[in-house]
Amino acid sequence: MKNVIGILGGMGPAATADMFQKFIQLTPAKKDQDHIPLLISSIPDIPDRSASILSNGENPKPFMEKYVKGLQVAGATCIIIACNTAHYWFSDLKKRTNIEMLSMIDAVVDAVLNTRMQRIGLLATDATLATNLYKNKLEEHGLTFIRPTIQGQKKVMESIYSLKGGNLKLATELMLAQRDELIKQGAELIILGCTEVPIVLADELKNNPNLYIDSTQVLVQAAIDWYNTH
Amino acid sequence: MKNVIGILGGMGPAATADMFQKFIQLTPAKKDQDHIPLLISSIPDIPDRSASILSNGENPKPFMEKYVKGLQVAGATCIIIACNTAHYWFSDLKKRTNIEMLSMIDAVVDAVLNTRMQRIGLLATDATLATNLYKNKLEEHGLTFIRPTIQGQKKVMESIYSLKGGNLKLATELMLAQRDELIKQGAELIILGCTEVPIVLADELKNNPNLYIDSTQVLVQAAIDWYNTH
Repeated sequence: MKNVIGILGGMGPAATADMFQKFIQLTPAKKDQDHIPLLISSIPDIPDRSASILSNGENPKPFMEKYVKGLQVAGATCIIIACNTAHYWFSDLKKRTNIEMLSMIDAVVDAVLNTRMQRIGLLATDATLATNLYKNKLEEHGLTFIRPTIQGQKKVMESIYSLKGGNLKLATELMLAQRDELIKQGAELIILGCTEVPIVLADELKNNPNLYIDSTQVLVQAAIDWYNTH
Repeated sequence: MKNVIGILGGMGPAATADMFQKFIQLTPAKKDQDHIPLLISSIPDIPDRSASILSNGENPKPFMEKYVKGLQVAGATCIIIACNTAHYWFSDLKKRTNIEMLSMIDAVVDAVLNTRMQRIGLLATDATLATNLYKNKLEEHGLTFIRPTIQGQKKVMESIYSLKGGNLKLATELMLAQRDELIKQGAELIILGCTEVPIVLADELKNNPNLYIDSTQVLVQAAIDWYNTH
């Protein structure tokens, strides 16, 4: 059987499109046929992940399950999710499918460990913070986890929702200020742990690639590696 | 039933990603859930369309049929194809599916007619030229069809395959020269009638939007209009 990577996206669509672009950029291809086969679900009616975790909003899991199933029946043989917060449901989703699923959180933690940096900052959603998706795994490896202050985190969320609402300029200003705060707290490396953040900081990522771990990029690289070895 | 637009892409992946981006840009959205639901097939092993038409290469139709079926079983209710040349098989594919399919060629011709311009240039693949996908429909409406010279068309193809091979700079230089030639021949409006060309001329499209019909953009708009009325 031919392998096809399925992207569960739509959370949000811009982050999914960024992931698609990164597959193209990271694949050395001389012609169409050299690219990684992808099936992409960008059906954005999946209820807000943060609202579900933090304020008892509608549960996105049944939607995600349905769209994973859709990708599978269409031919996907390995699923990745283009949203960090959604990884709160990763193990549950993985249990309910019989095809491969690669975790963005694991890919990011592996990338962090490869840098040998010790003090790790995180720009992510409230829900990714509240569920300790990154904190626990980083601390297990003896690393110091650094997060924005309570006030600063409000600005991170304002930035993320500004991007989702189409205001990139405001989103970037807000996020860069919080990036600076993490560095003041001693962060040597910053995880862009929400798939909207690499879009918000796209120019900055080009200028200072070694300061960041882009969660979208490392998951794409993990998926390309999987594809090339299966 | 919820409507979902299915994109048959991968011809090539960069053009498919450009189409995805244009859905996001053309949708006024304040949050994820406002975006158009999309399923995207970017499985690029579809044999080269031009080679099949012009030099008896492997037939891409069975591949396209299979991937349209995949999109349908995953939930797509309306299919669009992110490749002009592939529209050579559009009627055949449409006959074999029971869901809606919107034609890029029709969307472009409608957009051309709306401009009331008379002398229409075309930047497209050899195979789109050879099959008269645009020429016949434009002439039916009494418009003058202008194509590159035989030598110029070789440069257009070199440009398209340069982009597919990752060389945007060379692709843009080659394509701009042929754009100039079409204008010298009297073209008042130029159809970017290969989905790689709006990528090749992305900066130029921003500077002179009224000189061009972007086949990707007009099909995306037609699909958004369909979604909003069904």
